Amino acid sequence: VPRKSIDTLSENRIVDLLKRRFSGRSPFLEKGIGDDAAVIRPSGAKERWIVTTDMLLENVDFRRDWQTAAELGWKSLAVNLSDLAAMGVRPRFYIVSLALPVDIKEPWIASFYTGMRSVGNKNGAVLIGGDLSGSPKGIDISITAIGETQHRKIVYRTGGRPGDRVYVTGILGCAAAGLLLLKNGVRRGRTTAERQALAAHRKPRPRCAAGEWVAQNDFARAMMDLSDGLSMDLPRLCRASGTGARVYASRLPRVEGGGLAFDPLELALHGGEDFELLFCISPRKARALESTWPSGFPPIHCIGSLEPGTEVVLMEAPGKSSRPLAEHGYDHFKSGSRSGAP
Amino acid sequence: VPRKSIDTLSENRIVDLLKRRFSGRSPFLEKGIGDDAAVIRPSGAKERWIVTTDMLLENVDFRRDWQTAAELGWKSLAVNLSDLAAMGVRPRFYIVSLALPVDIKEPWIASFYTGMRSVGNKNGAVLIGGDLSGSPKGIDISITAIGETQHRKIVYRTGGRPGDRVYVTGILGCAAAGLLLLKNGVRRGRTTAERQALAAHRKPRPRCAAGEWVAQNDFARAMMDLSDGLSMDLPRLCRASGTGARVYASRLPRVEGGGLAFDPLELALHGGEDFELLFCISPRKARALESTWPSGFPPIHCIGSLEPGTEVVLMEAPGKSSRPLAEHGYDHFKSGSRSGAP
Repeated sequence: VPRKSIDTLSENRIVDLLKRRFSGRSPFLEKGIGDDAAVIRPSGAKERWIVTTDMLLENVDFRRDWQTAAELGWKSLAVNLSDLAAMGVRPRFYIVSLALPVDIKEPWIASFYTGMRSVGNKNGAVLIGGDLSGSPKGIDISITAIGETQHRKIVYRTGGRPGDRVYVTGILGCAAAGLLLLKNGVRRGRTTAERQALAAHRKPRPRCAAGEWVAQNDFARAMMDLSDGLSMDLPRLCRASGTGARVYASRLPRVEGGGLAFDPLELALHGGEDFELLFCISPRKARALESTWPSGFPPIHCIGSLEPGTEVVLMEAPGKSSRPLAEHGYDHFKSGSRSGAP
Repeated sequence: VPRKSIDTLSENRIVDLLKRRFSGRSPFLEKGIGDDAAVIRPSGAKERWIVTTDMLLENVDFRRDWQTAAELGWKSLAVNLSDLAAMGVRPRFYIVSLALPVDIKEPWIASFYTGMRSVGNKNGAVLIGGDLSGSPKGIDISITAIGETQHRKIVYRTGGRPGDRVYVTGILGCAAAGLLLLKNGVRRGRTTAERQALAAHRKPRPRCAAGEWVAQNDFARAMMDLSDGLSMDLPRLCRASGTGARVYASRLPRVEGGGLAFDPLELALHGGEDFELLFCISPRKARALESTWPSGFPPIHCIGSLEPGTEVVLMEAPGKSSRPLAEHGYDHFKSGSRSGAP
């Protein structure tokens, strides 16, 4: 997933250009550019293998003083594992390129790898290699993660149909709330809500188990992870599936507004980096989904439905008036909100 | 291969740390940290799959005004394909993370991908995905390449034995000569030698066909690619194989000194980024190697032998006196030589 950008419209255009002009063809390639990850099928292999990559730059995607080295390692890998979760596949490996300024010393590096190992271990992924180099500027991190289907089940962004129910895991806007706290100088949460928000920003939990469960039980027709915020990501799923969508504001799971000086609805719509799952499911299966959803998983909420056409609209509640869900919603939090740029 | 570094001693130490403390274990993992690339074995697959990654930073590894966007794309991928060549495996896929400053426009991006596609096509690798983001500083490039064994043949760095003959492909020091020309303000070669040197720096040819051929014919006991220069890389192969080595200066294939104001021997010993293959072979097979070496391949030269012990020494010629091959040789060209830092 392209999480951060240049500006997102031009990013979408560039991805289209690459897809159109540079998409590779190979008998070993099942899915190339355009989804959360690429899918390959090694000759003779029982399963498909999935490859995804993400780059994080200091002062663009993170600030060194806003989280520990271990938290940064955790998050850098979590972002990639989330792309595998979004396909419903099981993480297996990761490989890491690091460019480090001279003031970064061995203990920092060890902590960074310890953080990666923590979230890797929790989700079944092990370190297999990488590249180290010096950086004249800030820390640059690039991780490629590799996953494997289970029983060949995999969920793309493309399978949604009008009428499908749209679900999300977890609480939306939590990571954005944490980021805004950091921007406002809050380094340690003073309330439970603040602590949760900071943790969501610093150590997001990739929804690998939930993603795999959804895929294994054939619940999702289309799925992706929420990295740029609902208002940016839902239209991507809709474009890939050839549908529109309707979202009910009243149904969006959001942070409690109490201790936070931000509008929880705005955060839920436009805040990035939640790394929750967004998926759609046939209405006939919705009851089964909700009644069998494992209790150890993050909560799920039905936030709306896919619709005919191409419009993505926001309604206060069913039957109320609607307005387009502004796709540039992310701009609202731009220059520093999404990923910590100063 | 870690091509560029912090400082190389500390880099070796960090790689050792990672290998010791963070090497992952998995039933699907055949070889993790420590060789040119990682080796995985998908369940049921006929072949092993090989994964490698490299990061290139503007003003560290390249300068925007020293080569075209297409040449930069070519080189960025070539560096990764060379790691696959060094294992003797066939390239299949690559995935690209790019962080781009705002002044980089679509035509530049298209040229960059065209350059990657050129060297990818020549070597059988296709683009499968990636990540795009904005960069407040320079261009950051991170590529992960994936290859496949043929008939399960693969060559590590570890198999060398005392007595083995040491071979290299191509001419050593050619890329370093090109870099020195650029540093001296020469943008277009005025002689054939200069043009070759500039091309070697700007568009290195990964030795994928030669590497695969060497592996398929069971010629190499150990192999790697020359990215940091012979004086840095040969000791790495020796450490991995548990041997020493002896290199004959008189046998090193080197650039012609005529038009270039540099010592060709120094360049051959310490110049980086040639991306030629370094491999060792049982002395009993040396004649067969040389007599069957395909004429379309780059030339090969036997430059010495692996020896008992751990010392890596340089002799003028067999029978002459020897001196240690200074492993910090690369420092000689440091701060800007190897990869174009200003």
